[in-house]
Amino acid sequence: MAASLADRHCVDCKPGTPQLPLDEVERLLQQVDGWAVEAVELDDRHQQLEKIFKFKGFMPAVDLVNRIAAIAEAEGHHPDLQVSYGSLTVQLWTHTAGGLTDNDFILAAKIDQVAGPLPLPSP
Amino acid sequence: MAASLADRHCVDCKPGTPQLPLDEVERLLQQVDGWAVEAVELDDRHQQLEKIFKFKGFMPAVDLVNRIAAIAEAEGHHPDLQVSYGSLTVQLWTHTAGGLTDNDFILAAKIDQVAGPLPLPSP
Repeated sequence: MAASLADRHCVDCKPGTPQLPLDEVERLLQQVDGWAVEAVELDDRHQQLEKIFKFKGFMPAVDLVNRIAAIAEAEGHHPDLQVSYGSLTVQLWTHTAGGLTDNDFILAAKIDQVAGPLPLPSP
Repeated sequence: MAASLADRHCVDCKPGTPQLPLDEVERLLQQVDGWAVEAVELDDRHQQLEKIFKFKGFMPAVDLVNRIAAIAEAEGHHPDLQVSYGSLTVQLWTHTAGGLTDNDFILAAKIDQVAGPLPLPSP
């Protein structure tokens, strides 16, 4: 059986590393929890993974920033993180590939591990 | 002599608190270091203070997030923070006022204090 995404490690992406084909993106997206594929800002050519974590207050988001930073440093692959009161938005893409690679899904799975399950929606 | 911005404390902003008039924004902007007044995203009606800190690597930005978070919690006024590899963007505005108040400049001055001086531009 193949190792789960969260058990794998990011590999160095050299310039020219290809983006994942769309069917592989869709396959891997099923293996992470609550992530969406979005266009990078206004640039339709580049895709990224995005997940929004919701919290009560400010410090839980900062706490998750610290947990994600430790993973990012260990893997040598760094997300963009947007902290606001009540939320943390995480964005992942591979600059050298100009889009999504295995590394992004590996980091997403590891982030899911340290973040715990998504809270249930409010009734 | 009036207390410097960094020595003052944020006050509770009730709904209906007015934005600062433009001449007061310009006066206070002279008392903080490297901040710019920007429109909030695509909404021309709301203004915010923004400062971009540049770093080598990822962890210095995370370190500054933690220092800013401690101030924000103490003052009960919270910025938006965008962490990327090599930079931290800080955005400040007062939601209850729909724009800038004294609180934003007070927090900006306190952030300047914990961040230290801006690095010299590269030669």
